[in-house]
Amino acid sequence: MVRNYIDTSDFTKEELLDMANLGILIKKNLKAGFPLNVLYHKTLGMIFEQSSTRTRVSFETAMTQLGGHAQYLAPGQIQLGSHETYYDTAKVLSRLVDVLMARVQKHERIVNLGKYADIPVINGMSDYNHPTQELGDLTTMLEHLPAGKRIEDCKVVFVGDCTQVCASLMMIVTKMGGSFVHFGPKGFQLNEHFQRIAEENCKVSGGSFLVTDDEDAIIGADFIYTDVWYGLYEAELSEEERNRIFYPKYQVDMEMLNKAGANCKFMHCLPATRGEEVTDEVMDSERSIVFDEAENRLTSIRALLVYFMGKRDITVDICKKNLGV
Amino acid sequence: MVRNYIDTSDFTKEELLDMANLGILIKKNLKAGFPLNVLYHKTLGMIFEQSSTRTRVSFETAMTQLGGHAQYLAPGQIQLGSHETYYDTAKVLSRLVDVLMARVQKHERIVNLGKYADIPVINGMSDYNHPTQELGDLTTMLEHLPAGKRIEDCKVVFVGDCTQVCASLMMIVTKMGGSFVHFGPKGFQLNEHFQRIAEENCKVSGGSFLVTDDEDAIIGADFIYTDVWYGLYEAELSEEERNRIFYPKYQVDMEMLNKAGANCKFMHCLPATRGEEVTDEVMDSERSIVFDEAENRLTSIRALLVYFMGKRDITVDICKKNLGV
Amino acid sequence: MVRNYIDTSDFTKEELLDMANLGILIKKNLKAGFPLNVLYHKTLGMIFEQSSTRTRVSFETAMTQLGGHAQYLAPGQIQLGSHETYYDTAKVLSRLVDVLMARVQKHERIVNLGKYADIPVINGMSDYNHPTQELGDLTTMLEHLPAGKRIEDCKVVFVGDCTQVCASLMMIVTKMGGSFVHFGPKGFQLNEHFQRIAEENCKVSGGSFLVTDDEDAIIGADFIYTDVWYGLYEAELSEEERNRIFYPKYQVDMEMLNKAGANCKFMHCLPATRGEEVTDEVMDSERSIVFDEAENRLTSIRALLVYFMGKRDITVDICKKNLGV
Repeated sequence: MVRNYIDTSDFTKEELLDMANLGILIKKNLKAGFPLNVLYHKTLGMIFEQSSTRTRVSFETAMTQLGGHAQYLAPGQIQLGSHETYYDTAKVLSRLVDVLMARVQKHERIVNLGKYADIPVINGMSDYNHPTQELGDLTTMLEHLPAGKRIEDCKVVFVGDCTQVCASLMMIVTKMGGSFVHFGPKGFQLNEHFQRIAEENCKVSGGSFLVTDDEDAIIGADFIYTDVWYGLYEAELSEEERNRIFYPKYQVDMEMLNKAGANCKFMHCLPATRGEEVTDEVMDSERSIVFDEAENRLTSIRALLVYFMGKRDITVDICKKNLGV
Repeated sequence: MVRNYIDTSDFTKEELLDMANLGILIKKNLKAGFPLNVLYHKTLGMIFEQSSTRTRVSFETAMTQLGGHAQYLAPGQIQLGSHETYYDTAKVLSRLVDVLMARVQKHERIVNLGKYADIPVINGMSDYNHPTQELGDLTTMLEHLPAGKRIEDCKVVFVGDCTQVCASLMMIVTKMGGSFVHFGPKGFQLNEHFQRIAEENCKVSGGSFLVTDDEDAIIGADFIYTDVWYGLYEAELSEEERNRIFYPKYQVDMEMLNKAGANCKFMHCLPATRGEEVTDEVMDSERSIVFDEAENRLTSIRALLVYFMGKRDITVDICKKNLGV
Repeated sequence: MVRNYIDTSDFTKEELLDMANLGILIKKNLKAGFPLNVLYHKTLGMIFEQSSTRTRVSFETAMTQLGGHAQYLAPGQIQLGSHETYYDTAKVLSRLVDVLMARVQKHERIVNLGKYADIPVINGMSDYNHPTQELGDLTTMLEHLPAGKRIEDCKVVFVGDCTQVCASLMMIVTKMGGSFVHFGPKGFQLNEHFQRIAEENCKVSGGSFLVTDDEDAIIGADFIYTDVWYGLYEAELSEEERNRIFYPKYQVDMEMLNKAGANCKFMHCLPATRGEEVTDEVMDSERSIVFDEAENRLTSIRALLVYFMGKRDITVDICKKNLGV
């Protein structure tokens, strides 16, 4: 049976950690100069209903590094669920490529693709969640764990608007058993649906979560994370509106970072609107790990491609042998 | 001398069968897990004057599987015959890539490219014909021959509007010596030009053809084939117009398929407008071979790339050795 | 320290000749059928703010031939300096790809990319210069040197509008120590800034330069070069305007070519508007080397990728060994 990567809720903590560690191992292998051809001559079909830089470039680079190739189907080139049925599109593409990813405007579209395709399907972001970002962010936190702490011990605070990235961060942190806080203004906080997921995750993992507009909730954070204020789907907010709602309370500046704690790291999915949700000083500080985080989009996507193409075990063997570990 | 693949009329029955069988052999080789690098580091330039999913994805996957790479030049990126002469475009591209394909709005454009290029040129569909579809369809019919029949013994009926796919199907069936019927309404039937081609082909091959609006002509068909009703070039028909012209007489439903014969298979070049030219029941029945047909776009395109790049013989040798046949 | 290829003024004559000769060596190696994998599994990110055929196809083919892959980021897919800062874009892309090229509308954009990127950056044309064309043109002149002449002995005349290609040709010819003439109408001649560069180059190289509207200045030319009259940036000229300004004095016809000299070769960066800046007779004559020139876009781009990716020495070794020289 094919398993797709559409929602991290479909996987256990152990499976997700295994994927993250697979990514870290492949990264070490490639940085050490050992080529990897586990997806030799394989083709990834990339469907983008919205344009993207980071996600598209990461998938395309990943396929090249693994010996395969990614086809870029730009917005408008494939219309999911209009010109032909999801079923037909999924069945045809299953005959012509080896694996699919899609960035979709409506979450149901990636679910439908996954339902009918005979090949693995990876969610490259929907209006609901952003699970490749999620795994990359887990990877980044694992690589930047505070001294003496495990991921289960970490407190992670998302500041600002409840974007898909906010929702995804909640899902991965509560899945891991960490402590998650969404510090955002009323009306822009994680909704009931997401809070139920957080609750379920915490029951299993022993983690905790809090949604609040009280700034004191950030105290003790190991990671502070934010995202743009203008929103990505449906109605975008004007600059005036978003400043009225979020500024200055939810802007991440050095004062906020220091309030969180002396060792608190700063994360952002990028692109950042410097001067809005984050100051230049924070972006450029040594406590900012945003570019490591950007690199880990690639790290996690390589792992996901390998994992869902059924090449996890052989890849682990090859990398360990190459690295002598 | 370079030979291009622009029109199947340029080739004999034996040559076309050889290409189809080459495709089947390469497919077996790849499905058995043997890599093939006969186009190692070669580049295909793909010029699309109209967008395409199946054709573009098939060419791009084929190049990857053969060790090369396909460059996608989207609609608007190269304008044939406007910004510079065909001659100059053809000469320049002949220096920068190894093989060209183009989907063009006017057939003369692919003819002109082929005339001036110093590298092989493949027609990825024009307003006149669709020869890569044609070879793929031959492949599909060869793979799904009724028990005890040869391709020469088959009756193939195209139902509905005379699209390029209809014309191409006529060309390949009459070339092979089969029996071809276009069952379509007056005003939307194969024109005089195409009927003369059919006639010429039948003289050589011993095949037969019929253009009619009499439904009884479908009786005894081994394959029933249809295409969308809205047309692809020039003025598209509105839903109301096309229903007035084609519905219900030319809709392929189970009743029509049963009238054709108990073993008659259903084909469609896709995308299909389910509920218009074909019912869900037919599309989803066991007699529908539309997804095998879609896969054979890739099968035939691999063969054409190999054949026109001068790698037929070495590819046959490699595949036979790999497969032990 | 990373060095970028943004402006040939950053390099000595010897370095530029070394790059050109590297290109010629790689071309020989590939034409002799020896594969080259010095950029195995490496990724080039290509940012195009304006569409391009020759440059894009050349970079993409080059990466395939060297064992890597080029990602095409079409106009509109990445906005340099708007959605996020140059700094952030450069830092992120440095984590996701191995080398960058960009065709930009404003020269400062490529300069900024180069300033912040941690990977090599190559200028694929700006509103200021066109240095990959420049190196390709040097290569073409080296391959077509008049009998008994060195590049230092050549006279090169650019006829017509002072495009980036005109400026770039001036830079490379004066850098090499040749004699450069811009024969164009007042108001469309190389400006003060470029004349100062020419002066500086000539001081070092012993070359000479002249900007004039006197046709007698073309006498003795070894190479006559022209470009389109409609301009590429800012306000394009109408057909009427450009004919009034340039026609017939600056049209390259056989009479002009003969006046230059019996052995004078014709060059053009293409696309050409036949009948405007050049006649059919010249384009199609044996003295036209425009398609060799087009091919050398690829020749020089391969060399630049290898050189700036730090693979010059190993590539020279491999090619010499392959060719037995």
